[in-house]
Amino acid sequence: MALYEEIAAQIRTQIVSGVYPPGKRIPSIRHFADHFGCNKLTVQRAFERLTADGLLEKIVGSGSYVKFPETIQAAGEVYDLSTDYLSESFFPHGVAGRIFQEIFARDKGAAFAAAPIAGDPSLIEVLGRFYRLPTRRMLVVSGAQQGLDLAAKVFAARIPDNILFEDPTYPGAISLFKARHFIPLDHAGPRIGELQARLADGIRLFYTMPAVHNPTGISYTAARQEAVARLAEAHGVFIIEDSYLSEFADDTRPRFVDIAPEQTIYIKSLSQTTVAGLRLGFMVVPSRLYDRFIHAKYTSDIGSNGLMQKFFDAFVRGGDYQRFLDATAARMQRRKNRLMDLLAPIGALTVAPDQQGGSLWVKSRTGLNLPHVPWAPGRQFSFNPAMENCFRISFMSLDDADFTRALDYLVDILGPMGR
Amino acid sequence: MALYEEIAAQIRTQIVSGVYPPGKRIPSIRHFADHFGCNKLTVQRAFERLTADGLLEKIVGSGSYVKFPETIQAAGEVYDLSTDYLSESFFPHGVAGRIFQEIFARDKGAAFAAAPIAGDPSLIEVLGRFYRLPTRRMLVVSGAQQGLDLAAKVFAARIPDNILFEDPTYPGAISLFKARHFIPLDHAGPRIGELQARLADGIRLFYTMPAVHNPTGISYTAARQEAVARLAEAHGVFIIEDSYLSEFADDTRPRFVDIAPEQTIYIKSLSQTTVAGLRLGFMVVPSRLYDRFIHAKYTSDIGSNGLMQKFFDAFVRGGDYQRFLDATAARMQRRKNRLMDLLAPIGALTVAPDQQGGSLWVKSRTGLNLPHVPWAPGRQFSFNPAMENCFRISFMSLDDADFTRALDYLVDILGPMGR
Repeated sequence: MALYEEIAAQIRTQIVSGVYPPGKRIPSIRHFADHFGCNKLTVQRAFERLTADGLLEKIVGSGSYVKFPETIQAAGEVYDLSTDYLSESFFPHGVAGRIFQEIFARDKGAAFAAAPIAGDPSLIEVLGRFYRLPTRRMLVVSGAQQGLDLAAKVFAARIPDNILFEDPTYPGAISLFKARHFIPLDHAGPRIGELQARLADGIRLFYTMPAVHNPTGISYTAARQEAVARLAEAHGVFIIEDSYLSEFADDTRPRFVDIAPEQTIYIKSLSQTTVAGLRLGFMVVPSRLYDRFIHAKYTSDIGSNGLMQKFFDAFVRGGDYQRFLDATAARMQRRKNRLMDLLAPIGALTVAPDQQGGSLWVKSRTGLNLPHVPWAPGRQFSFNPAMENCFRISFMSLDDADFTRALDYLVDILGPMGR
Repeated sequence: MALYEEIAAQIRTQIVSGVYPPGKRIPSIRHFADHFGCNKLTVQRAFERLTADGLLEKIVGSGSYVKFPETIQAAGEVYDLSTDYLSESFFPHGVAGRIFQEIFARDKGAAFAAAPIAGDPSLIEVLGRFYRLPTRRMLVVSGAQQGLDLAAKVFAARIPDNILFEDPTYPGAISLFKARHFIPLDHAGPRIGELQARLADGIRLFYTMPAVHNPTGISYTAARQEAVARLAEAHGVFIIEDSYLSEFADDTRPRFVDIAPEQTIYIKSLSQTTVAGLRLGFMVVPSRLYDRFIHAKYTSDIGSNGLMQKFFDAFVRGGDYQRFLDATAARMQRRKNRLMDLLAPIGALTVAPDQQGGSLWVKSRTGLNLPHVPWAPGRQFSFNPAMENCFRISFMSLDDADFTRALDYLVDILGPMGR
């Protein structure tokens, strides 16, 4: 390995391990040159490598910064297969534009009226019907990440020591909660014996994505889910149920919010199922915690944007949301089939069957020595070295033309791995 | 005082002192009946009184909850003079509707694209020009309250022990930061000697509204502001400058962000100057804290709504924002004159001259024994008993017809206080 590659690898380790978190400016080229006892050109080559890998970005006149996963964009021949939002190109913007026009025509100045802290009552009512959930304990939030943030505030005293995560799990939760405790998943969920031992050992909260888990695409079996719920109740543990892409699960088994309602903080992203910029979601929380969540919401941002809530209300009521979900599910299946056809023959890769949602979680037998990484590497989702050679390919964030080109690109870079 | 009034007064004290914060369900009628040793009908009358006063709201089947100040609505003969947002009726919804149409026509699916974490670069650029502020350290937030929340996260370790507030101050800050330390204001700002003593005594943060202070309407003199800035620099204290309604200050003296940029976290609400439902604002932070604010924003809600940012960008660029501010300033002056004409002759009331913005801070020589309180009582802004008889009348949240009716209503309720 050339010296610059060695240095790049060491800096990469520091980024991955959180010494330099996303958004952080890393020390200067001069600093690393002193530190490694090499000349500055060598460090510069290492920086260029990390920039090409999407880990750093240079801001002229300011230095190099650790990139947020979300800011990775398709550039040149690299296609972004790391983002798990849906491509904006799918969203029916014609319908959306018409709905906004109708709102302004109908509500006049009140189009911009502030919604109550808990959310627009009309939106809450229609979401309750659509998702078969109680409205009395529901609140509208500015996306699932805010739902997690409110939970972090309400449970502040128990975090990060007493919160358990699936391994692997969602990077935004790792970052927010400074995650420390993890439990591995098999194809059916966490193993109950191991979970029981962890709950007996001081764990008070369990963050889980039981339907269409991110990044592995599994869904808990009904039996496993039931067992987890009973354990949580027995130990007085709260479940943070991140419902993520549950709309795209194959069946509609009960959720934690259904089978353990007084132990479950249910979080549903609506940006994830529509378009990233929507920044809406909702929560259903135990009745005895409702006041505290409302208070946390109030101190966080007073309330979510009222006009967006009116928009989404109309989008659901008019049937456009269901139509969009149906069209998206069909598109998801078609794209997944094409991607599986491409990956399955590659002997060095393992793709677990029955994965759901808009991503595939792939395990590679060998390390991948690539100049560019188009997918989300395993280290974003886990501190476990065993996941170093895993990665998540998200196949719904590109428009149709780019997706087809991205498949060709994958053939090019994965071809050398043989069949 | 009848027994039910006595009980209402005691519960009111508990609400005001924070035993039952906004959004909290208060104990049952039966509980209070046992506690006070009276029958349930008496407690029910007390509850009805507190509900009429706007402190409680009953939710059928669930109990009575402490109301958030924001949810107080005009009802019957009560006019809401407690909200300091501008009436939605002022906002040029025709212009807004047209801008949304243009965005959908121009951007198609990308209308809903997610903005970067720091905010839409185009919006940041135009805000930098409009407000004469550096864009490199700017981030867009979902309203000023979120700006405060991000500051609370970045400075977590120093809060609430080491943060100083003006007395009186903004209730949302009291609630978020669990405010403990206060410094009184005179007509020109805090007294420098007293501030110096507090800063020497472990204070690391100072939350201030130096232009159009809420609720007193004062603005710091330039000399006082300069002295505060030098003290902050000398003691390494950060200033959280909540710029609130600075657009409506009479002059444009330098801000803390101008004279002490590396000590100042500048927060600007854009909902406050336009319409409550907008839920946008921005911050300018010291360069050495920028990364940490971006990280806090990312873990809070990924980013603010992209479509709203596009809207506001166009609203500023087209000159509509400046036109709206000009029209609002003129309307504010007219309404203030009408209200001053009404209040000035009432001997029991003192209204300090030269108050700016859309509210008047009024001191009453006598306690006001009113069944309904249309304004925001002093206890929302201060724990100081001396402010018990103060109140803030906000005169910009009603449409023109309701405002005229509200003036008549004020004559009715204040008339008995004599001339």
